[in-house]
Amino acid sequence: MSLARWGWALLGLLLALGAPAGAEKGMEFPEYDGRDRVHILNADNYQAVMKRYGVMVLYYHKHVGESRAAQRQFQMEELALELAAQVLDDYDDEDIGFGLVDSKKDGAVAKKLGMKEIESIYIFADDEIVEYDGQLAADTLVEFLYDVIEDPVEIIDNERELKGFFNIDEDMKLVGYFKGKKSPHFIEFDDAAEEFHPFVKFFATFDSKIGKMLKLKMNQVDFYEPFMNEPVTIPGKPHTEAELVDYIEAHDRPTLRKLEPHSMYEIWEDAIDGQHIVAFAEESDPDGFEFLEILKEVSRENTDNPDLSIIWIDPDDFPLLVPYWEKTFDIDLSSPQIGVVDVEDADSLWLDMDEDEAMPTAHQLDEWIEDVLSENDDDDDDNDSGDDK
Amino acid sequence: MSLARWGWALLGLLLALGAPAGAEKGMEFPEYDGRDRVHILNADNYQAVMKRYGVMVLYYHKHVGESRAAQRQFQMEELALELAAQVLDDYDDEDIGFGLVDSKKDGAVAKKLGMKEIESIYIFADDEIVEYDGQLAADTLVEFLYDVIEDPVEIIDNERELKGFFNIDEDMKLVGYFKGKKSPHFIEFDDAAEEFHPFVKFFATFDSKIGKMLKLKMNQVDFYEPFMNEPVTIPGKPHTEAELVDYIEAHDRPTLRKLEPHSMYEIWEDAIDGQHIVAFAEESDPDGFEFLEILKEVSRENTDNPDLSIIWIDPDDFPLLVPYWEKTFDIDLSSPQIGVVDVEDADSLWLDMDEDEAMPTAHQLDEWIEDVLSENDDDDDDNDSGDDK
Repeated sequence: MSLARWGWALLGLLLALGAPAGAEKGMEFPEYDGRDRVHILNADNYQAVMKRYGVMVLYYHKHVGESRAAQRQFQMEELALELAAQVLDDYDDEDIGFGLVDSKKDGAVAKKLGMKEIESIYIFADDEIVEYDGQLAADTLVEFLYDVIEDPVEIIDNERELKGFFNIDEDMKLVGYFKGKKSPHFIEFDDAAEEFHPFVKFFATFDSKIGKMLKLKMNQVDFYEPFMNEPVTIPGKPHTEAELVDYIEAHDRPTLRKLEPHSMYEIWEDAIDGQHIVAFAEESDPDGFEFLEILKEVSRENTDNPDLSIIWIDPDDFPLLVPYWEKTFDIDLSSPQIGVVDVEDADSLWLDMDEDEAMPTAHQLDEWIEDVLSENDDDDDDNDSGDDK
Repeated sequence: MSLARWGWALLGLLLALGAPAGAEKGMEFPEYDGRDRVHILNADNYQAVMKRYGVMVLYYHKHVGESRAAQRQFQMEELALELAAQVLDDYDDEDIGFGLVDSKKDGAVAKKLGMKEIESIYIFADDEIVEYDGQLAADTLVEFLYDVIEDPVEIIDNERELKGFFNIDEDMKLVGYFKGKKSPHFIEFDDAAEEFHPFVKFFATFDSKIGKMLKLKMNQVDFYEPFMNEPVTIPGKPHTEAELVDYIEAHDRPTLRKLEPHSMYEIWEDAIDGQHIVAFAEESDPDGFEFLEILKEVSRENTDNPDLSIIWIDPDDFPLLVPYWEKTFDIDLSSPQIGVVDVEDADSLWLDMDEDEAMPTAHQLDEWIEDVLSENDDDDDDNDSGDDK
């Protein structure tokens, strides 16, 4: 790698920022040590390099042109990866390697490795490939990698852990009750988990008491959509890996999902008819919490509608984007908002909610959503809404 | 300001990062526009500059020496502030200004403005000064500023908002029941809120039904420590601003508190006898959730012990520090940990928890904490623990 000198210096400072002089020990961000860790992969070296690491993180990037702007942008992307690579160096003896693959020069390498989307990051771990299509920031990527290297199935041993399981409602999750780790049905379940890990959370219990509390019979697997109270039992137990995979793929667009930095672009690309229903609500604010409760209620009522998928954005998770969203969508994010956004041109239409008046009821919100969906069905028929779906 | 050219270029790239080419509209991070926004304040201009803004954010920094390293570090700090300044430019017509005060050249200015701690950021808003002693990162600072410019008291109007109030358990909070916005007792409460805003959350209701659900009589104010189920009623209603301020100051070190990026250095500096009891637990993991439940139980039992203050760190909030903590403290953060850390030299001692065995019970954890506190009382008496406190 040939980063300009200032690049390295900056990297160190990025790492060193935030620790005031004379700070007490225990909170210092590490400083950059000057070592290059990110590999450039090509047809000659990629096999040898990849053999050296248990986990390999590859950025499949656009070819960097002559323009200074493009070169600088690429240097910053390299810096984010170098920062992640240093922080994870020797982490837990995991041997995590980082590399770059140029889409113009080494498209053949990418093809052999199964990387398709340019500007995505691919993580190779245990014969699985995980695509990362989130923010290219070191902290978000590193947090995601911790999840990748964890076991794909988490075992629930006791009631407190079960409470922890119920506490997770923002992710899609499955839970199964099996005889034990060696049960062939658990092994199928574990294999299926690897296919979706870490985006879908898989849990299992071998404890009959916990199984009973989850209302699970032996080898039964229940599927929980995000924010839904009641699970759906996957029919036809016991299941093979393929049956589980098929079921999840057929149900992988939830009625309500939260935008997360680690998957924000992937979710944004998954629009229905080029549009998203987007709801902004700050969970830690009573107003936002109230609106979110209404939103969950409506989503639960409409969970069987395949045309409905609402993206919930908590502005607290994206502080630097808040003023941009306010300007782009012409809305005030200090109170909750819901609207329809066209992903091609960012045109949008927002439900009129007066800040001083009461929130819409679940019924009103449901009607508004029905209007939006029926207009989607028939674009020529602008005002004829609510009559059917 | 005279940042080197590459500084500006980088800033743009920092802002532009993360949006892949060809991404759908609505998720683009804004690019830097090249304008300088951060002022350098001195004795001649500080009054005029501060008059121009409704909210002023001043970084009271160390004088930058001749060394290249010091200059680069300072440039990165300036960049973080420029980034925040651009993002907040014209935000909500709030007129938020940013400036730098050099502690060597302009110590007199700092003194006049009431800034004491070098390397802290001071926010001047509505005649109040708020000290920010957190991570010097644009996103964390910007998120904090959104909280600063919100009203210091949030009004609870209905049952769903009340549920949102109960949902907030990580912050210290107060709630009062008053006749209305014009009640002199509410005005005293609101004035007290300004003193602690946004670190302590203040809520009020004017609705008799909500007051009843909170078990509040007219003009009563209840105080909630973080993670405690039951509030304490502040004695002697109705309260003056000074009485409320005194009460909060006497109770401002909770038994259990969460380390947050926006106040991490402030909390770390607030050690008891140079030590912290630190607990690592990942809330979104069943193991971590289980341990946190035990920790909350023990904290609730010991809420009246002024010598006990446990810092809970969720590793998910600090991904880049995880490997550093694992090395510094010689622990494995993939499962929960609790220990005592000396803030002078980062020496630490951790409770032995076998990953494959059951968690300690609340009683065992309580005994371990009692041992730690009694050894703190008498350093010569290493193994004679548990006999008194």
